[in-house]
Amino acid sequence: MAEQVQIKAETVKELRERTGAGFMDCKRALEEANGDLDGAVTLLRERGQAAAMKRAGRDAREGQVASYIHPGGRVGVLIEVNCETDFVARTEEFQKLVRDLAMQVAGLAPVYVDVDQIPGPELVAKKAALLAADAVQSKPEAIREKIVEGQLNKWYKEVCLLEQPFRDEDRSVRDLVTEKISTIGENIRVRRFVRFGLGEEM
Amino acid sequence: MAEQVQIKAETVKELRERTGAGFMDCKRALEEANGDLDGAVTLLRERGQAAAMKRAGRDAREGQVASYIHPGGRVGVLIEVNCETDFVARTEEFQKLVRDLAMQVAGLAPVYVDVDQIPGPELVAKKAALLAADAVQSKPEAIREKIVEGQLNKWYKEVCLLEQPFRDEDRSVRDLVTEKISTIGENIRVRRFVRFGLGEEM
Repeated sequence: MAEQVQIKAETVKELRERTGAGFMDCKRALEEANGDLDGAVTLLRERGQAAAMKRAGRDAREGQVASYIHPGGRVGVLIEVNCETDFVARTEEFQKLVRDLAMQVAGLAPVYVDVDQIPGPELVAKKAALLAADAVQSKPEAIREKIVEGQLNKWYKEVCLLEQPFRDEDRSVRDLVTEKISTIGENIRVRRFVRFGLGEEM
Repeated sequence: MAEQVQIKAETVKELRERTGAGFMDCKRALEEANGDLDGAVTLLRERGQAAAMKRAGRDAREGQVASYIHPGGRVGVLIEVNCETDFVARTEEFQKLVRDLAMQVAGLAPVYVDVDQIPGPELVAKKAALLAADAVQSKPEAIREKIVEGQLNKWYKEVCLLEQPFRDEDRSVRDLVTEKISTIGENIRVRRFVRFGLGEEM
């Protein structure tokens, strides 16, 4: 067995700030990652996701309806985010998450919460349009399906809130929500949102 | 001609507060209504509507996207109200109107802006359901249409924002908007709104 790496208190502190995980979880993750901060983040994220998966099936009917209006009032967002209890709904951490999500919608203008919310006919039409493009048709038939799949995944990252990158970070909005399910300890679900741009086409 | 009624300054002031109309317009309306405040309100409203009608055709693409969240975050509203210029959009009077409308939507939960926005199939289904009711079928056939029409008008006052009574006042939201078109001097249009109730059926 490799010699135990000495973990500095400030590294644990930094990891806690980055992940919101508890002190002992952070220390253990750093030991397992031989003191590598990014490795420990990955470990904690995987564990958080495992814990979050267990919670994801739980009923979430409490939460917050919140809004974000861009200064000047030309863009506005209304969002509903659910958690399991009114107690959690009132916490600063949950409310900050809801604010962050509303600002994300205002800034990046997603259309759907996630892939499941894309109406069937729209998905079919999108696939057909991608497949019909010259750049795809010029490729061998055997790999066209694969190319379109890649393009669809890219499209999901534009139109689905949960698949979008969160701000300029290297994690998705789904990662953020999963992390919060893990740190808050309740199932959290972005239920719906709308975004109005002043005078935009409807 | 009847003797000119003496109009008190405080009556003019009250009329101005109730209608937002100018001093001379209020004084003249009170004289014509023989000092009767309610009569003068009606006169000014009619005139405001005449002026508003002229403006109602004008393009309105500026305005505000605004929100109202009930304390506790269980009900929220996002609304877009258009006017003609950014200058008016920034005025306190316009912004107060937008806030009032958002609060109205939160409180009275209309579904549509106006009758035109009700989808054809829904209107047809509503009419058929009203006509099929025992209370209507028990009446002579000749007057059933008339009864259903009255019931539809009552329904419009529930589901259409512009047809709803504004707060507990004896005027509709449409009257309020018309009055603002008259006092602000620009076309104003409630373009769209959404209302989220926490955990409600979608």
